Amino acid sequence: MNSAQKLAQIRAIFKQQQIDGFIIQRGDEFLNEYVAPYAERLAWLTGFTGSAGMAVILDQKAAVFSDGRYILQMQQELNQDHWESFHISKHPPLQWIIEQNQPSIKLGYDPKLMSEKDLKAFEHPSITLIPIEANPIDAIWHDQPSPPHHPIVPHDIQFSGQDHHEKIEILQQALIDNQEDAYILCDPASICWLLNIRGSDVPYTPIPLVFAIITQNEVALYADTEQYINNLSEFLGNDVLLKSHTELETDLIALANTNIAFDPAQTPIWFIQTLKKHEVTFSKRSNPCTLPKSRKNLIEQEGSRQAHLRDAVAMCRFLYWLEHHGVGHSEVEVAKKLNGFRQEAGGDFYKEESFPAISGVGANGAIIHYHATPENCSILTEGKAYLIDSGGQYLDGTTDITRTIWLGKNIAPQDLKEAVTCVLQGHIAISSAIFPKGTTGSRLDVLARYSLWQKGLDYDHGTGHGVGSYLSVHEGPCRISSIPFPVPLQEGMIISNEPGYYLSGQYGIRLENLLLVTAATHNNFLQFEPLTLVPFDKNLIDTEMLSKNQKNWLNQYHQQVFDKISHHLNKNEKQWLQQVCSDVT
Amino acid sequence: MNSAQKLAQIRAIFKQQQIDGFIIQRGDEFLNEYVAPYAERLAWLTGFTGSAGMAVILDQKAAVFSDGRYILQMQQELNQDHWESFHISKHPPLQWIIEQNQPSIKLGYDPKLMSEKDLKAFEHPSITLIPIEANPIDAIWHDQPSPPHHPIVPHDIQFSGQDHHEKIEILQQALIDNQEDAYILCDPASICWLLNIRGSDVPYTPIPLVFAIITQNEVALYADTEQYINNLSEFLGNDVLLKSHTELETDLIALANTNIAFDPAQTPIWFIQTLKKHEVTFSKRSNPCTLPKSRKNLIEQEGSRQAHLRDAVAMCRFLYWLEHHGVGHSEVEVAKKLNGFRQEAGGDFYKEESFPAISGVGANGAIIHYHATPENCSILTEGKAYLIDSGGQYLDGTTDITRTIWLGKNIAPQDLKEAVTCVLQGHIAISSAIFPKGTTGSRLDVLARYSLWQKGLDYDHGTGHGVGSYLSVHEGPCRISSIPFPVPLQEGMIISNEPGYYLSGQYGIRLENLLLVTAATHNNFLQFEPLTLVPFDKNLIDTEMLSKNQKNWLNQYHQQVFDKISHHLNKNEKQWLQQVCSDVT
Repeated sequence: MNSAQKLAQIRAIFKQQQIDGFIIQRGDEFLNEYVAPYAERLAWLTGFTGSAGMAVILDQKAAVFSDGRYILQMQQELNQDHWESFHISKHPPLQWIIEQNQPSIKLGYDPKLMSEKDLKAFEHPSITLIPIEANPIDAIWHDQPSPPHHPIVPHDIQFSGQDHHEKIEILQQALIDNQEDAYILCDPASICWLLNIRGSDVPYTPIPLVFAIITQNEVALYADTEQYINNLSEFLGNDVLLKSHTELETDLIALANTNIAFDPAQTPIWFIQTLKKHEVTFSKRSNPCTLPKSRKNLIEQEGSRQAHLRDAVAMCRFLYWLEHHGVGHSEVEVAKKLNGFRQEAGGDFYKEESFPAISGVGANGAIIHYHATPENCSILTEGKAYLIDSGGQYLDGTTDITRTIWLGKNIAPQDLKEAVTCVLQGHIAISSAIFPKGTTGSRLDVLARYSLWQKGLDYDHGTGHGVGSYLSVHEGPCRISSIPFPVPLQEGMIISNEPGYYLSGQYGIRLENLLLVTAATHNNFLQFEPLTLVPFDKNLIDTEMLSKNQKNWLNQYHQQVFDKISHHLNKNEKQWLQQVCSDVT
Repeated sequence: MNSAQKLAQIRAIFKQQQIDGFIIQRGDEFLNEYVAPYAERLAWLTGFTGSAGMAVILDQKAAVFSDGRYILQMQQELNQDHWESFHISKHPPLQWIIEQNQPSIKLGYDPKLMSEKDLKAFEHPSITLIPIEANPIDAIWHDQPSPPHHPIVPHDIQFSGQDHHEKIEILQQALIDNQEDAYILCDPASICWLLNIRGSDVPYTPIPLVFAIITQNEVALYADTEQYINNLSEFLGNDVLLKSHTELETDLIALANTNIAFDPAQTPIWFIQTLKKHEVTFSKRSNPCTLPKSRKNLIEQEGSRQAHLRDAVAMCRFLYWLEHHGVGHSEVEVAKKLNGFRQEAGGDFYKEESFPAISGVGANGAIIHYHATPENCSILTEGKAYLIDSGGQYLDGTTDITRTIWLGKNIAPQDLKEAVTCVLQGHIAISSAIFPKGTTGSRLDVLARYSLWQKGLDYDHGTGHGVGSYLSVHEGPCRISSIPFPVPLQEGMIISNEPGYYLSGQYGIRLENLLLVTAATHNNFLQFEPLTLVPFDKNLIDTEMLSKNQKNWLNQYHQQVFDKISHHLNKNEKQWLQQVCSDVT
């Protein structure tokens, strides 16, 4: 079926359902970022494969919306005869719908795939929102894969650092304190953290597709019963009930006459509609796992350091290989090569990539979340910049690193070096920041942009996101972003530092390390410890532009990289590392 | 009457009024920052003379609340047997009231002195808020001065740059567009801007105490009729009605059955209560003068440059005098000397100080808004830092400048020099920032603090406030502050840049210039033009700590100061300026 046929079939369903349009949000019933193939409805329908976005189909028109990372990719992947595409915050879906000038619209949505917060973005006098439980895309997607049900496995205390009973107890005490009878937890990563379990139902994030209901005495876990294998029941203990997804609705209804709490941003509206139907009272409280999950304990912190050491060994060996053998290979081959180095360096600890690697040469690097495919990718050639953004899932930690590398022996053009150096200056400003407790990531954001701004440059994405501990590579509640956000950075949080610059049609630059928030020597101040230990390409740095402090930072960082990584490398790689880590003056 | 007697009398009134407590907010019926002597109720009652704060008196206890600038001053000025004092945001009045553990409190307030927003801070289940129209302080303050009624004078087009009829028309068009019949304007500075008038009813800000009601065809101005003199009526034109304060209530009631708009943050709740009593419908819309008033037109910008030139001549002559003759004089005498230089350099343009000068030597400089009095002030002595924060009201512009000066010939201690240099680095980072249109001052704030933070230092006040054009020295809607604030910096805005550092009991540092927001050469970017042209004291700068860019900024700034100011000075002053403006290397 082509784009036009799919749209025609969807619109035929509109008539049956008595709706004028439908919202298709990328995501699954667990509101995950990375979803199993059965839930790739947006990609199947529209062709757009970005990791965030939504479509709105009306009778005459259809449009896809995504953020600044995906503007170019939408234009490339969508059939523009049938699909318009927009920047989701600059030209949001509601605005587009209103612009169609229909006096009243019945807009359908799948209540299992959207949260209350998602729906709020469509509230307007002219719009009636109608939940459609039988998803119209599922109805026409005949070869839709089945949902996965891979085993749920214990996550050992040597990695988690805290017994799950301890974590459960804290949450149950909060229920008692708040006079709540239950908390509905719909976020699989939070459930994994809480119960010290992991899974493999979606790519890139080691989670099973599960819900949980925490009561004052028990935790009920909902999965496919085939997922409960081996010693899981014994590991979790008697106070964790292993239930089936099919029991969920009945159990929710059984909560009638009790006081239920949930996070409106992380709970599909289906839950609320079901509870309301059965007159269960409920209150809204943000996910109580989010903050403790983000504040890694000492075991998790040390695990992350170890994971990053292995990851740095893989990256250094990769960068050596890239310099000597990369040119002539395709973007896809090169990314595969890097994954091979990760497998080798990671051994039994390494599980998979933490997200689809972004491997883009030249102009492809300017597509912020470019996805090279074997059918449609470029060959690395001399005289171009190459951007590689990748990460790994290790049993003891999750990594995420971006480097921009100059290919070939020629000297890089001055404008490129200037832009890279501005990005590096932003990276250094964040990395070396010392800041009082209570400071939010929003307040620090400008440090990453100041040098770029001085030359009239900027980038259209956040500066940093939280990262999980062998969990999601994008994790709340901390971030470094221009958008004001109330949660301050706190000890133990792991956050990315990834300023960039993108010149459409020419090149993309991003320099990303993961940072651990630690106590500073000054009382009541915090600082960052770089977890990522991989050199920056000096061929792209204009050292004239660096201040003495910035040179010192770079030289000390490179010295640390050499000290910690070199003894894991062979002789040639080691010589190479010594040279790329040598001081700038 | 002493503190105890005043409190006893106030509490006696509580019984008559059947209230358990009373809120005394610093301010007048116009919610002004600087108030006429009759409205200095907080100072008369408590002894605390800061420019912001409030008191709450309960049956048994009483407390004063102010911001970080005034923590030390509260402790010094209040009689601590009768008054507690708190940081208003860290330990707000509501929290303190709740801590008194009274199950229910009837809390009185003067509805003419508080806005709806002010009152919101006291909403709590245990509190009943009761408007008391007969202010209890007025009842016991027997020698309370009368309210002033000085003439209202036209502000010439050569200074305002735009005819008031043009401004009125824009507001009236907005009324038509919003289907509103009237806008109630309670902010005298906004009325001054709108009608191109000025006055002299309060110190430091050239405003009359007036209200205005703008309808689709007219503007009604409310003042004491004695204030309407000479050609004012002719200047304002037929569409501006000169009314008396005594007509206000009748006119408000006459608005019944119309749609009225006002700014809830700038309107005493008395207006709302009066309108409600007479069933007038109203809507809330933020003051429509605030943004255009803050975006100075080209005439106002040029006026500000001229005012700053005169102010810089005065400041340079003052600094020369201070270096040669300052030691041995008192803080009050020195501030008076500076005002004399302003009068001389400003000539007919100079009207008064734009706020009470803060003149603090040594430890007094650490009291952020220190107010030296003839009875209780220190003598400038060698080997101390001296902080002078002052400004002037010139017909064509308002100034505000702070410098920290090392007194005497000895070399300043290294810790002081380090702290001053960190503050200067923050000042330079803001001053030289280039930033995209749409950037808020909140996003820039960290630039002013970064260098201090690196040494575990910080300051407990905002980094910058808007400044009016021969109007209020503190003006919205722009500011540079850690508190997220939605209004972006825009061309024509004038904003202060004043990072500081305060070591209690030792010294205070603040380095303040006013900056004009202008277009940058990069498309869609903005930058700052320093309006203030006065040297920074190189005796307090550790040039070793400055980067090449920071040295360049300082040298270029000092060169500009010398070029623009030196020819207004006598031979000795000029020689001195050349030396203090010479390059650092």
